This record gives sequence, C-alpha cells and structure tokens, in this order.
Amino acid sequence: MGPHPAVAAIRLAVRRVLHDVLTLAPTTSSPQGAGEPPLVLVACSGGADSMALASALAFEAPRLGVRAGGVTVDHGLQPGSDLRAAEVVSRLTALDLDPVEAVRVDVGREGGPEAAAREARYAALDAVADRHGAAAILLGHTRDDQAETVLLGLARGSGIRSLSGMATASGAGGRYRRPFLGLDRQTARKACMVQSLPVWDDPHNADPAYTRSRVRHEALPVLEKALGKGVVEALARTAQLSRDDADALDSWAAAVEPSVRDDSGDLEVAKLYALPPAVRRRVLRRAAIAAGSPAGSLFARHLEEVDRLITGWRGQGAINLPGRVAVRRQGGRLVLRQG
Amino acid sequence: MGPHPAVAAIRLAVRRVLHDVLTLAPTTSSPQGAGEPPLVLVACSGGADSMALASALAFEAPRLGVRAGGVTVDHGLQPGSDLRAAEVVSRLTALDLDPVEAVRVDVGREGGPEAAAREARYAALDAVADRHGAAAILLGHTRDDQAETVLLGLARGSGIRSLSGMATASGAGGRYRRPFLGLDRQTARKACMVQSLPVWDDPHNADPAYTRSRVRHEALPVLEKALGKGVVEALARTAQLSRDDADALDSWAAAVEPSVRDDSGDLEVAKLYALPPAVRRRVLRRAAIAAGSPAGSLFARHLEEVDRLITGWRGQGAINLPGRVAVRRQGGRLVLRQG
Repeated sequence: MGPHPAVAAIRLAVRRVLHDVLTLAPTTSSPQGAGEPPLVLVACSGGADSMALASALAFEAPRLGVRAGGVTVDHGLQPGSDLRAAEVVSRLTALDLDPVEAVRVDVGREGGPEAAAREARYAALDAVADRHGAAAILLGHTRDDQAETVLLGLARGSGIRSLSGMATASGAGGRYRRPFLGLDRQTARKACMVQSLPVWDDPHNADPAYTRSRVRHEALPVLEKALGKGVVEALARTAQLSRDDADALDSWAAAVEPSVRDDSGDLEVAKLYALPPAVRRRVLRRAAIAAGSPAGSLFARHLEEVDRLITGWRGQGAINLPGRVAVRRQGGRLVLRQG
Repeated sequence: MGPHPAVAAIRLAVRRVLHDVLTLAPTTSSPQGAGEPPLVLVACSGGADSMALASALAFEAPRLGVRAGGVTVDHGLQPGSDLRAAEVVSRLTALDLDPVEAVRVDVGREGGPEAAAREARYAALDAVADRHGAAAILLGHTRDDQAETVLLGLARGSGIRSLSGMATASGAGGRYRRPFLGLDRQTARKACMVQSLPVWDDPHNADPAYTRSRVRHEALPVLEKALGKGVVEALARTAQLSRDDADALDSWAAAVEPSVRDDSGDLEVAKLYALPPAVRRRVLRRAAIAAGSPAGSLFARHLEEVDRLITGWRGQGAINLPGRVAVRRQGGRLVLRQG
C-alpha cells in the first residue's frame, strides 16, 4: 500500500524541487566539503506547512543522494520563543535531519512588524545557508499563502508586479525554493496528521492585528462565498500569469531604454511618447532608479506624474521623486538629477 | 456661490468627455442631420449613477454646443418594468433631454442572466445610437463598479486582461464613454440628493443571487475592513495598469506572430521557445483564434496545455481546443487545423 495521498503529494512536490536543485548543483559548493553531496535546508517554524515540508525532505533527500538539514528562526517576539525554537530543533532532529539549528534574530521596526520580521528572518536564513554551503533552502509557503499575498498586493494597487506573489525560486541564485506553492494548506495539514507529526499553530496567524491574518480569516472566506470555491486557485494562477507578464514587460523596457537616451544620457520625449504607456512607465521607473531614487519608495503615482511631463505637457516645473531626484522637461528631453 | 462639490465633480467629468467627443466628431455623422451639432446620449436606468450622469449631461451639453438625449432599456425581467421605463423617460424629458426613448429588449439565456442582460442592453443601445446618428453614449459606471469588475475578473484567474475592468471608451469607434469611472458611487448619490433628483434602487443590485451583488455587499466591505479603506481605489488603479500592460503585450504578440510562422503558416517551435512565456502564450492564443477557436471559449488552461508541446515536449498527441481546432507538434512545427 502506498502512502496517504496527502503524503504522496508533499513528497512529489519536494522530489521535483530536489531534482531541479541536483541538476543545478550536483555537489556542494562549500569549501569545507567540496565534492560532498549537496545540502538542502528546510526553514521550519514548527507549523503544519513547514513540518510537512521537513517530513517530505527527510523522506526524499536520502533517496536522491542529498543531505537534508533544518533551521528554525526564533524571532524573540514572545516570551518562551526560545523554548519553542528548541522544541522545533528536537522535532527536526527526530526526523533525522542534520545539521539542525535554531537562530535567534533581532526584529527591527522598519516597514511595519511583518516586513521587519521577514527581513530579519531571510537575513538569518541566508547566513545559515552560507555557513553550511547549502544548495537550497526550502520554504513551506502554500497556494493559500500565495492567494493571500496576491490580495495583499492588490490592495497596494501598484500594478501587476505586486500581483505576482511569491516565486517558486527566489533569492540569490534562486536558493529559496517553495515546493508547496501549488499545494493547498489542507494537504499539508492532512500530511502532518496522518504521519502523526506534532504541529504548532502560530498565534500570530490568527491575530487580527496582522493584515495577513485578517486576509486569511476574514477576507478570503468571504471572497470564496461571494465568488465561488475556486478563488484561491484563481488568485494563485493570477500570480503566475502576472509574474510572466511583468517579466516580459520589464525585459522590453530594459531593451528599449538605451535607445531613448541621447548622447548625454537624457531621455528623449518624442521617443518616450511613441512607446506603449506600459513600457514607457517602466522605462521611467528604470531611469528614476538609475538616477538614485530608491526602488522601494517609488510608487505608481510618482511615475504617473513624471509621465504627464510627456503626455500632458503644459509647462510643469520639476517633479520631485524619493531620494532627492528631480525630473525636469527641458528642450524635448527629460533630465533626471539627484540634488 | 458655485454648485455643491459633488455636482461640480460630476459636471467636470462629463465636460471632459464631451470635449473629447467634440474633438473627434465636431458635427453629427447621421445622414439625416449632417452639419448639425453632435448628439450625445446617456444610458439611464433611473438609478443614482445614471441619473447623476443625465443631470450633468443636461447641464453641460448646451454650453458646449452638443445635443443631449437619453435612452432607458426595459429588460422586461420584472412585472411593471415597462411602467418603470416610462417613468425614467419622463424624468429624462424633465431634464430637457431630447430625444428620449425607452427600448424594450428580450433577454436570452446564454452565458448566465447577467451576461445575457448585458448583451441585450448593448445591442439595443447600439441600435438607438445608430438610428439617431449619436456620436457617443454615456454610461454611469463608477469607480466602485470598476472595483467590482476587477474582483470578478480576479475570480476567473485568467490573467491581466480580465483584471483590466471596463475602459473609459469602448465599443465601435469608442462610442461608449464612462465619464464616472474615476468617481465614487457616493459622489453620484450625493449629486442626485443635492439636486433633488428622484432615483430608483434596482432590486437586482441587492439580490444575493447575483454574483456582482454579493461582491458589492459582502466581498468589498470585508476586503476594506481587512486591507484598509483604499481598496476600491487600488482595484481601480490595478484595472488601468493591467489594461495598459495587456495592451502592450498584445501588441508585442501581434508584431512577433508573423516572424514565428514558416512559409506554410505553421508555427516554428524553436522560435516560439525563444519568446518570453507571456508573449508566447499570447501568440498561441492568436494562432488558435486564427485557426477557428472562439476567443470566448479559449481559457488559460487550454493555452498552458499547448505551451507544454513547446516547453514540456515528451511526444504528446494532438491537443484539442474549443471550435474543433487540433494542435499537433510535427517536425519542429506546431500545426493547428480545424477538423
């Protein structure tokens, strides 16, 4: 008799990613262990999604000649979080993962509590992966997480890049992998249950102070009721299609950008005007970033205002962008200067 | 003292559109009245949005040398709908619109009740506009309607074209105009109130049997609660950005399509493979439609399957698309044939 369908599903998802990792990194890249089999780490909070992921990695890795390890991040945001992390370490060790470690991070405040925790977490995971020369770090995000991310991006209203959710591979060299992005949360929970894996429900996941938690527990159920059961799948598909679309348009803008600059590097208004609006906005964004505007502070409304120097010219003065970048229209050119 | 801000806002929105219509059609195009000032019709259900629109058109049109008329569509779906239509006619006449008429339509069943009613409505409006040689037909859709349309498109999960909502100008020659697409519903209601315009609340708008009604009364309020007050605006901005992006990608696909066909018109796999996935999918869609597949029945999943003939080739057989179009990979070519 084969494994339970949920267990089969999580193992298949991990096996596919390990195949892919092996193709790219047949042996480890760490100087200490050159020639050894590659190491793949699972990032595990102790919740159902990442515990299911850890169990599937523990099962598949030895069959494919891959070493499997685990890491849990202690965000230090609740009393006793260190004990919790130690507990996760012992559960990962019980799955025969090796190495296994807990890393403590200090969460700052920049960009809000969720963004700050995320940034601290990825920095810690990067450091652990570097130290061990890991070929990949698996993350337990599911299709449900993806749907939530798309809704959060939609609320920003900043275009299709923010609708494209999380990538199946991200980070430097694509080291972060999300094998479960096509699986629903229910499958991961079921897989834990039938394997008798103890899991921990993060109280933050149900805390309505967090936007993502409100999206999960309030917005998505009501959307499903209004629009039908396929909403999560539709949002996940939107993410993939939007990502491909955004990539294609970014490549178009990158290709065309040099041709709209004159000899001194200023942008020629007539050539910008001839571009499709979607491409023009992306060229303007690239130019603003190249002039010193920080990508994260540059919003759709900034670019709309710059665009009006081209499409709605009535003698406007300079447009000020984040990072003290001023955009001026001068004699058929857009001149971007950092002040 | 100027008008109430809500009234000023609806008039400004209509004035902008009339300016645009005048630029394109300075005199009427109807054979009967060549040389006359152009006629602009408002499509009016008697609800707040379209009554506000009718009042703004009645105010602005004479000032710009435009003739203003109105039309209301009787869908015949409720007992007494003919009396309702007659009542709307008298209200439009009281605003000094001329001509004003009610048209009765027969709503079919194809595509569900909402789609069938929409199709019958636009066919009737087209016929009225043609008969009067109208330069434009104004529609009362607001930013809130746009947000609902984006959510409905999102639920289809079929990509950014379905996220692009309604256009400010659509139909043959852009005859349908939506002056209120940037205004919220509240402004239209307020404008009716302060002008003491009687309005009718369509019971369908609150009927939970209709998906749009569930989106309006259940989904959007919960999304606002979870994600913040700016959700409607964010959805409307997403529509505009998605529309521009989809237009640009469509133009790319149209430009590249001839170059991926060989002398006999079949598609060359190697050239398709080299395209960005977003462009390749659109080229495949164009080719399927050219081969006879009906655009409305061709979904993302069909194109994904055809795409796997290129990116995941393992000797698959023919893929069957709607409209009896079969796609086969033969000797480095994709061959599309209607059977």
